[in-house]
Amino acid sequence: MDVVIVGSVALDSIETPSGSVERALGGSATYASIAASYFAPVGVVGVVGGDFSKEHIAALRKRGVDLEGLEIIPDGKTFFWAGRYRANLNERDTLETQLNVFETFSPNLPPSYRKRPFLLLGNIHPELQMNVLEQVERPRLVLCDTMNLWIATALEPLRRLLRRVDVLCVNDGEARQLSGQTSIPAAAEWLLKAGPRHVIVKRGEHGCSIYGRRGSFSIPACAVRRPVDPTGAGDSFAGGFLGYLAARGRTDEATFRQALVAGSVMASYCVEGFSVGKMLRLTMSQIGGRCLELHRATQFEPIRLKKR
Amino acid sequence: MDVVIVGSVALDSIETPSGSVERALGGSATYASIAASYFAPVGVVGVVGGDFSKEHIAALRKRGVDLEGLEIIPDGKTFFWAGRYRANLNERDTLETQLNVFETFSPNLPPSYRKRPFLLLGNIHPELQMNVLEQVERPRLVLCDTMNLWIATALEPLRRLLRRVDVLCVNDGEARQLSGQTSIPAAAEWLLKAGPRHVIVKRGEHGCSIYGRRGSFSIPACAVRRPVDPTGAGDSFAGGFLGYLAARGRTDEATFRQALVAGSVMASYCVEGFSVGKMLRLTMSQIGGRCLELHRATQFEPIRLKKR
Repeated sequence: MDVVIVGSVALDSIETPSGSVERALGGSATYASIAASYFAPVGVVGVVGGDFSKEHIAALRKRGVDLEGLEIIPDGKTFFWAGRYRANLNERDTLETQLNVFETFSPNLPPSYRKRPFLLLGNIHPELQMNVLEQVERPRLVLCDTMNLWIATALEPLRRLLRRVDVLCVNDGEARQLSGQTSIPAAAEWLLKAGPRHVIVKRGEHGCSIYGRRGSFSIPACAVRRPVDPTGAGDSFAGGFLGYLAARGRTDEATFRQALVAGSVMASYCVEGFSVGKMLRLTMSQIGGRCLELHRATQFEPIRLKKR
Repeated sequence: MDVVIVGSVALDSIETPSGSVERALGGSATYASIAASYFAPVGVVGVVGGDFSKEHIAALRKRGVDLEGLEIIPDGKTFFWAGRYRANLNERDTLETQLNVFETFSPNLPPSYRKRPFLLLGNIHPELQMNVLEQVERPRLVLCDTMNLWIATALEPLRRLLRRVDVLCVNDGEARQLSGQTSIPAAAEWLLKAGPRHVIVKRGEHGCSIYGRRGSFSIPACAVRRPVDPTGAGDSFAGGFLGYLAARGRTDEATFRQALVAGSVMASYCVEGFSVGKMLRLTMSQIGGRCLELHRATQFEPIRLKKR
């Protein structure tokens, strides 16, 4: 089954303790679509300028990503972000943000995208996410990502959106910010009442959890010994998660659990290279290998206690 | 099989956003021995003053904790700690520390303790931990806890100790501090080279991991909706972990995994009450219930990927 992903397509200049890249392929829709492409057919909805190179287009096409929904404005400039990560890689400073063609972006879905069953609303303004959602006919599953910026500046449109999505995907800080709750289980409970049937909380190096009405499920992060560039890890997670569901064509609890593993594996490969460098060149056996590693690192025999 | 636990036995005055207690039962050996007592026979090695009340002694005895190794100095005062937790419960400020009888403590193991197979070196000065270790005859398994204070002020004795213990139990911050590594997997790898065959890294609300030469295993934390007082959670974890191993009389990888679950469950009950309040009154069915919850929240079917 097919996936539609809306989000930013960007050029990123990134500095980390391991090095730097200039105007590399980035953006939430880019990371998510490359991650999802390993599992299912993907179409992207976004906008770029005339400075978006043929090499970048070719890289996405090579991964089989359908670009019919990618608008190119020849005399515009692509969304640009520059940032620098601190030594621990958990904190970053934004050095520059140029919205460029994103400032006036009004998504327009190609007719062939409107009946696709799996929709990923990548991290962009909640009103753009809603706009896209309204163009898709009865999607089977809608996943929505967001960030601290929209929670702070666009809370009302975000709240309206939450009432119409199936899965919300946030990190632990965003879960706390959005809910006003201190503990993550309490935050997840609050968010479930705000609309989505499932809430995914990403915990960075500590893994991630999915909360639903029937309980929670958690996995650790894959062991990444040398993280290089965390940019796009959350988007890659979301793309891997939704791509896996689409590949299986199922949305039951057991498949959600496996999809969380698939997403986590894609995020782990994402952070091992700058930009999408490592993610473009994976094999299914590498992806399957890490899924197996996570299985080995989490399973245990049930405990039967005797009274002392 | 039996457990010996050395550590502090203390009186704690604690303030948290949920309330406060004055001169309540505390100390690393206290929390660890109460947690372990649900699984296996436990003897405590420690020291208290004449101000340690009969009620506190009775509470430990009621849990079946053997106090032959607890020295009472009638004209001395018990180790006292006062602290205040901040709103998120992850940070605390020490308001007062009185070492009192601990200042001159020289542990002396009762002969009946010297052949016990499982030894827990709770969080006290590494030289005291080494002193106790040297009094136990060929223990089957030695677990050692420590804290940022000893890493900063007693690194050499701690390093000597690490070469002689089987399992090191630290939190993520301590793992980074001790190893100088940024990522937790890299820190664990470093610590494994320093001596212990296994390293447990506690991640607070994000769960915990155990690292060994043959890989790692991680579990999430039990969902605690209303944490009240985090004091002693790490000690309760260690006590539950070692108590479970002792109850099973096994130290293989599969039992280590289950013991991590048992420890995590004890820590979750610990934080739900002030001091040892909640931990003193558990049933085996409450403990077994949370073990089952953790099993349900972590298991998934292996993933078989098809090439697209």
